[in-house]
Amino acid sequence: MDEVDEEWQGLDENVAHIPFFAERYSEAEMIKRSQMFYELLNKRRSVRFLSDEMVPREVIDNVIRTAGTSPSGAHTEPWTFVVVQDQYLKHKIREIVEEEEEINYKKRMGDRWVNDLKRLRTNWIKEYLDTAPYLILIFKQVYGRLPNGKKKTHYYNEISVSIACGILLAALMFDISQLDFLRGFSVLSSTC
Amino acid sequence: MDEVDEEWQGLDENVAHIPFFAERYSEAEMIKRSQMFYELLNKRRSVRFLSDEMVPREVIDNVIRTAGTSPSGAHTEPWTFVVVQDQYLKHKIREIVEEEEEINYKKRMGDRWVNDLKRLRTNWIKEYLDTAPYLILIFKQVYGRLPNGKKKTHYYNEISVSIACGILLAALMFDISQLDFLRGFSVLSSTC
Repeated sequence: MDEVDEEWQGLDENVAHIPFFAERYSEAEMIKRSQMFYELLNKRRSVRFLSDEMVPREVIDNVIRTAGTSPSGAHTEPWTFVVVQDQYLKHKIREIVEEEEEINYKKRMGDRWVNDLKRLRTNWIKEYLDTAPYLILIFKQVYGRLPNGKKKTHYYNEISVSIACGILLAALMFDISQLDFLRGFSVLSSTC
Repeated sequence: MDEVDEEWQGLDENVAHIPFFAERYSEAEMIKRSQMFYELLNKRRSVRFLSDEMVPREVIDNVIRTAGTSPSGAHTEPWTFVVVQDQYLKHKIREIVEEEEEINYKKRMGDRWVNDLKRLRTNWIKEYLDTAPYLILIFKQVYGRLPNGKKKTHYYNEISVSIACGILLAALMFDISQLDFLRGFSVLSSTC
């Protein structure tokens, strides 16, 4: 109590101090867990044909909560996650994404990109956006708003959102097992 | 066998087809796992004081292997992970990072950034870069090299590397329990 920092005390967010405790596994346990987690995540594939099997909404909510624990520049948390379940809306999104992606293939990205993708045998048709039980749209907030209406700078917003996406992917793999969404993610990130 | 795709057959990387099987947990199990994974990752804090306790190198290698399963633009995998354990090298890196970070605080990032960071009570002194048993340096490869020496485009390289960093963070949390490196990461990403 003698070490009260005046500057800190003066700030609006004077929250209670929560002591930090880190548990630690034994060395053998760490090695086992690291091997297991690698094997699990190494099963992920960027598939283009998705199952329409339903997953409890609670799981999707927990996955997004997990992504929201991501670190971010100056702790601005510059992300918005939107879950879409409605069939009509999913189809509308598919139309927008396919339209943008067709432009990518036909002019925006250039011949080299089209050629580099050839071996992956992808195109701009994304049927899986109709099939998937949920679409998780991820938006980066290039800036925020302060209570007084002024712009709030979001430092490293693209890096921060992408790190959150990596955590989201890890959570999907751990919680459910197989899913992937980079295509949808990268497409939307280029159009929003 | 009737559906052989001539175009695909003609490509150099004609690897064997590995059928994809996705295991799926029961709904109750998914909910339980998603809750557990959220609680685990929610324990992560961006601490500035790290333990010097050793962690088996095998764990670090598995963490990096896990990060390397990340999706990337056109599967270019535009990342380089470097593990530094040598005390002298770690200190050299600390000096470089602190020098760059001091410039961030004093001129590069501007008054607003310095002010926004105030409540986090951070500065450019990073003692923990000496303390941590390992530093994992993560570099984005802005482009690669083709066998003929020409430049190979790495699409979305910053997004791809950042997603890999998110997966790396998730693996560190799952395998070891507590660590964080966003500060070091973001500093290095701004200087390389």
